[in-house]
Amino acid sequence: MKFAIVGTGALGGFYGGLLVRSGQDVHFLMRSDAEYVKTHGLKVDTKLGDFHLPNVNVYTDPRDMPACDCVIVAMKSTQNGQLASLLPPLFGPDSIALVLQNGLHVEQSTRDVVGPGRVAGGCCFLCSNKVGPGHIRHLDYGKILMGPYQGMDDNEPGPSLERLMNLRDIFRATGIECEVTERLTWARWRKLMWNLTFNGLSVILDSSTDKIMKHPHSRALAKSILCEVRQTATDCGHFIEPEFVDYMMEHTDEMVPYDSSMRLDYKAKRPMEVEVIYGNAIRAAAKLGVKAPIIESMYRQLHFLADR
Amino acid sequence: MKFAIVGTGALGGFYGGLLVRSGQDVHFLMRSDAEYVKTHGLKVDTKLGDFHLPNVNVYTDPRDMPACDCVIVAMKSTQNGQLASLLPPLFGPDSIALVLQNGLHVEQSTRDVVGPGRVAGGCCFLCSNKVGPGHIRHLDYGKILMGPYQGMDDNEPGPSLERLMNLRDIFRATGIECEVTERLTWARWRKLMWNLTFNGLSVILDSSTDKIMKHPHSRALAKSILCEVRQTATDCGHFIEPEFVDYMMEHTDEMVPYDSSMRLDYKAKRPMEVEVIYGNAIRAAAKLGVKAPIIESMYRQLHFLADR
Repeated sequence: MKFAIVGTGALGGFYGGLLVRSGQDVHFLMRSDAEYVKTHGLKVDTKLGDFHLPNVNVYTDPRDMPACDCVIVAMKSTQNGQLASLLPPLFGPDSIALVLQNGLHVEQSTRDVVGPGRVAGGCCFLCSNKVGPGHIRHLDYGKILMGPYQGMDDNEPGPSLERLMNLRDIFRATGIECEVTERLTWARWRKLMWNLTFNGLSVILDSSTDKIMKHPHSRALAKSILCEVRQTATDCGHFIEPEFVDYMMEHTDEMVPYDSSMRLDYKAKRPMEVEVIYGNAIRAAAKLGVKAPIIESMYRQLHFLADR
Repeated sequence: MKFAIVGTGALGGFYGGLLVRSGQDVHFLMRSDAEYVKTHGLKVDTKLGDFHLPNVNVYTDPRDMPACDCVIVAMKSTQNGQLASLLPPLFGPDSIALVLQNGLHVEQSTRDVVGPGRVAGGCCFLCSNKVGPGHIRHLDYGKILMGPYQGMDDNEPGPSLERLMNLRDIFRATGIECEVTERLTWARWRKLMWNLTFNGLSVILDSSTDKIMKHPHSRALAKSILCEVRQTATDCGHFIEPEFVDYMMEHTDEMVPYDSSMRLDYKAKRPMEVEVIYGNAIRAAAKLGVKAPIIESMYRQLHFLADR
């Protein structure tokens, strides 16, 4: 099966590398690292077994790439404005896109380019960094929970579950966990529990997750935000069990000291994914008359800090 | 009438200086500035007319001071732990305290020392800085709205309104606006509209009020907080009219670029008045089952930032 990886960073490089290693035909669209990887290949350090791929298919222009069965959208969503020019050359009549980005309805930009019924989304539970050109360091986790994208109001048909299950089996063969859900929006909200809480707090309080969990006031605040996200998701029709709040707290307690991707972006003065994570959650809630005052404050604080 | 000024900073120095100038018998308790003021006097720059008081009654130990008719508590509330030793020597059988500090129920520490029925509180609308030893610069405003303090549950008798009206007339004679209200807690909540919104935001966003008012997101956030404070006060039985939100926004738009007292404290690494402003408001609301999610988040963020 032919794969395109659009955006070969910490995430695209990791999953794309695993796909190559397990024998799939993978085509990488790169920017800054292209020349380096053409010469030196792609290197992935992972507890699944470090590996080096000396010869990978590298492109800088999507028009040079073949049409692919599955186009994996793996760049930061802050660059989604480029999808209109990047995706069409990669799409044949039977292609689907798998959007492995953070955020609620983050698939909509891809859907707007390739049309309805051709987009799946995946929530990735992954700690991975790019440590140098063509060099990925996978720290922990890696599971993908994927589902058909059904549009802003969850009322469009998505790709068939059979196709996603086929894709799931291919991912499983690379050595990572993968599941399919019919309820992508629910899965997105569940993932947002962590992202809405800790991405924003780590930027606003300028602290790593372990420090946030340690101080009694920021710890209590994190729990309040988790409760508000859970209630918001539930009031929007995506039930999350109350126990998940404590599970998230314990899970975060057990994490290694970690800088969220949003904090890494903030420190590096790159655009932060405020709109797809916070903005889309607030708008989805507002559409149904659901109030989320803390999340909305964080949204506004983050925009102010981003522009400062 | 004999006055004691406990805490001769930007506020105590200003009002105390005005009282001296208008002929009252004023006794200043000072710490760091005492020696300087004994030698050089007290200097007040103000658009009410700059003045210099070469001879003022300065003390460093309250046991050297006479009992006073009115003891003005004018230090930062973060030092209220010292009141138990500072106040008793200043209190005769008929003394009252006038607490000119920020925050809800900030009078309670004074009330705990001097007993019920002897404490009034005043909301000061004052822009004033201490610019050097014994040197106060009054920038704008100055009005005092005072009322009897009636305890944590507003059910203790306070000093008589007649006594406060007498005090009001003395303050008016110094050249500043002064009013008496029976509803001190309501006046405190009204003042908290600004303090809960802009004190915290200016610290969390590390910005002066004009920058906060200028950016569309922080501006919208400021308005959301004002709305939440208004609703919280109203749900606690202290009605504030909805129009007051827009009035506060316009009022803040018209202010000169201003660093809130909390931000000045934060920048100077002094303790911030988080408990009397945020903590007491949250606890008063919680006691009545009223939720204030944004104010509570700010409370926790401020504590985290204070301890970082």
